Amino acid sequence: MSSPIAPAVSIPRAARIIGIDPGSQRTGVGILDVDERGKLSHVFHTALVVAGEASFPLRLKRIFDELSDIIGAHRPDECGIERVFMARNADSALKLGQARGAAICAVVSQGIVVHEYAATEVKQAVVGSGRGDKSQVQHMIGVLLGLKGPLQADAADALAIAVTHAHTRASLGRVGIPRTAWRRGR
Amino acid sequence: MSSPIAPAVSIPRAARIIGIDPGSQRTGVGILDVDERGKLSHVFHTALVVAGEASFPLRLKRIFDELSDIIGAHRPDECGIERVFMARNADSALKLGQARGAAICAVVSQGIVVHEYAATEVKQAVVGSGRGDKSQVQHMIGVLLGLKGPLQADAADALAIAVTHAHTRASLGRVGIPRTAWRRGR
Repeated sequence: MSSPIAPAVSIPRAARIIGIDPGSQRTGVGILDVDERGKLSHVFHTALVVAGEASFPLRLKRIFDELSDIIGAHRPDECGIERVFMARNADSALKLGQARGAAICAVVSQGIVVHEYAATEVKQAVVGSGRGDKSQVQHMIGVLLGLKGPLQADAADALAIAVTHAHTRASLGRVGIPRTAWRRGR
Repeated sequence: MSSPIAPAVSIPRAARIIGIDPGSQRTGVGILDVDERGKLSHVFHTALVVAGEASFPLRLKRIFDELSDIIGAHRPDECGIERVFMARNADSALKLGQARGAAICAVVSQGIVVHEYAATEVKQAVVGSGRGDKSQVQHMIGVLLGLKGPLQADAADALAIAVTHAHTRASLGRVGIPRTAWRRGR
């Protein structure tokens, strides 16, 4: 007779990860696969441009609908999103917050857990320093994922967040930190 | 032979209106019916308390899911929501924005148009002055909708926004302002 035994340390398994860089004008989306040994493969990326919609509620609907379609088509297992520490001012924070709320709703309404990463963690994971600049991130994402040609900045950021989550889940799996410890949002 | 003629002035018809007062801790929801003569009847109100959820993304999911259920049950035709001019600071603006984004997504994803009203417009519509205080709004909403007993503050605000939209759509109908003119969001 066998009885199920829960492993004391969770072993990271292969997963499909969606990274999202939300914005009130453009929302970057990047999807990649990570295998059991941590090898990354690019699946998809885009930047949803919603600035042309007639009203802000319609922008939110576009973000929600298009992200829902992308999630439905690619079926990611986990999600990484950038944590916002400080927006420039209250007005831009409110707009960014609404776009972020729409993006998170599209993810969590399909049962996918959202993990948040600070911008410095993303830069550390991708360029090896928390002080790297945007062009370095774009360049390194191209190299890491074997992409040819220039990459749109928001899509590159989204892929960078997905890479960060792929690295973080692997190291957390190795040291056995319970996954609930890094699920907490703002 | 008859040919369809579009009326030059849109006549407000009876409608069911949902008012929403979103917040990162509590989201007020109020629903009322307005008939052709502008008579209001209370349908439903509640305050969704999401502060207890383990993470902020789960709060957004609660707002989205519960609002979607309420909309599914009561089938409102139009939505009013408070326009935010200035949040206290960037951090609270971001949290409020995310809650607002989740609420707006729940509404627009069911094809309902969102109309935004400034706090001063809501006070003007409900207590006759843009400088009325919260307790006056609570009191007047109880009187206007014939509600017995005390009303939770966020639910009262949501009903006040619904009342404001009911009044505004009626007067706009009378003067014939195209409805697209007041659909614009932030």
